[in-house]
Amino acid sequence: MSRMDELLAALPPAPFVDDLGLRFTELGEGWAESALTTTPRLTQAQGLVHAGVLATIADHTAGAAAATLVDEGRYVVTTEFKINLLRPVIAPRVHCRAEVVKPGRRITVVESRVSAESDDGERALAAIALLTLAVVGDHAV
Amino acid sequence: MSRMDELLAALPPAPFVDDLGLRFTELGEGWAESALTTTPRLTQAQGLVHAGVLATIADHTAGAAAATLVDEGRYVVTTEFKINLLRPVIAPRVHCRAEVVKPGRRITVVESRVSAESDDGERALAAIALLTLAVVGDHAV
Amino acid sequence: MSRMDELLAALPPAPFVDDLGLRFTELGEGWAESALTTTPRLTQAQGLVHAGVLATIADHTAGAAAATLVDEGRYVVTTEFKINLLRPVIAPRVHCRAEVVKPGRRITVVESRVSAESDDGERALAAIALLTLAVVGDHAV
Amino acid sequence: MSRMDELLAALPPAPFVDDLGLRFTELGEGWAESALTTTPRLTQAQGLVHAGVLATIADHTAGAAAATLVDEGRYVVTTEFKINLLRPVIAPRVHCRAEVVKPGRRITVVESRVSAESDDGERALAAIALLTLAVVGDHAV
Repeated sequence: MSRMDELLAALPPAPFVDDLGLRFTELGEGWAESALTTTPRLTQAQGLVHAGVLATIADHTAGAAAATLVDEGRYVVTTEFKINLLRPVIAPRVHCRAEVVKPGRRITVVESRVSAESDDGERALAAIALLTLAVVGDHAV
Repeated sequence: MSRMDELLAALPPAPFVDDLGLRFTELGEGWAESALTTTPRLTQAQGLVHAGVLATIADHTAGAAAATLVDEGRYVVTTEFKINLLRPVIAPRVHCRAEVVKPGRRITVVESRVSAESDDGERALAAIALLTLAVVGDHAV
Repeated sequence: MSRMDELLAALPPAPFVDDLGLRFTELGEGWAESALTTTPRLTQAQGLVHAGVLATIADHTAGAAAATLVDEGRYVVTTEFKINLLRPVIAPRVHCRAEVVKPGRRITVVESRVSAESDDGERALAAIALLTLAVVGDHAV
Repeated sequence: MSRMDELLAALPPAPFVDDLGLRFTELGEGWAESALTTTPRLTQAQGLVHAGVLATIADHTAGAAAATLVDEGRYVVTTEFKINLLRPVIAPRVHCRAEVVKPGRRITVVESRVSAESDDGERALAAIALLTLAVVGDHAV
């Protein structure tokens, strides 16, 4: 099993993002990438991908990035985040890359960048988020 | 038709939040309230309502609150927001109240408070968000 | 000594805000108010009070509000904050009220509202901030 | 006059940051760097550089970075920002690099990274901020 498979296997299933269709495409120590195929179900009133979808992707990918640096038996939960929506998203695919900015024993700060991806694979930065995650769970494990 | 019905009728359908089951319960000039029945589909790995769901509710209710103060023919889009997740949500229902903090011709700032609601109607504040919305569309309409 | 005097006495001196001229005007369990007389020294290029000054006031007053709920021997440090600047400030005085939104053993979330105050005491909301503070120090004290 | 001198000359004086001792060290299209020598006057109760100082540096350097991309006769004002304080700063110097994430005709989003700098020039990331700036002023100029 590769290191990425190990990291993926350590990520528990998450019904909400599974339902959206989010899947991780790459993972390493301190970072994670994910992708989502957009559908009409994920849009807001003007037909754009809903800000809540982009926020969910930014948050969930950040959680995976942070989780790669956490001791076994511990996990992360989001304390707060801020997201800037940089352009409307109508692209067929959304891509996210999350990188740990500052790992910590109790608090980890992560940045997520969400891009709209066209059919020919071109990406345009669509959202940027800064997230604070708390590291929780049994210290003794 | 009551003022609330008028305001509701002016809100266009939004597939993503309809799919989540969010519905507006009350609306007035500069504020909006919404409610959502939680389901296992909306949870993250530990069985809590996903941060992305709470962010979506905060954002969408803020959009409705801002929209009540906008001229006909114009609409609002979220520029950015920040949300603090204050406690894990496992409650059967989530409630949100959004209030315009500062309306503007171009930018409106809104605060949303999301509460977990128990079966007997007790509410506990679960998230607080501060959102910046841009007012867009034809000025001349 | 009144309860407010006790709370004030428990706040350690802070050179930077003393230098700005910030002083607390009222304090209670879970909230604090402060005031500042603006001077040309505190302005940015267009003659408005600098965003950094408003952020400092919001942050420091939030710290005092959080400190009123913390056990003896422990103190608070800001983990992160977000501030929306709602209108330019040229008023002779700035006022801030900070309220704890959610106290916690480890993390406290506070909201600060900063107002411009005219000579006849009228206040206009000029900034709103949401702050996360970590509660640190010896648990055993 | 070099391009950096031109950009610097276009930045108007700002009393508050001049008083703190902030000065720009490098500027280019879409980015800016600044430095500050810390003094006891800039500290909070525990002797650390005050969060308000770090926020001011992040904000002001972001403003300069955004200003390098703005048409003559127009200027930028901060709409809102969020800052994560990543470690306590007691270093003799603070350095900031701000980069435009997304320029815009009306709104520019900038990221600022503030580092503590030791006497031998080593830098440790101390704060990261995400800022929204409005581009204002006469369009016709």
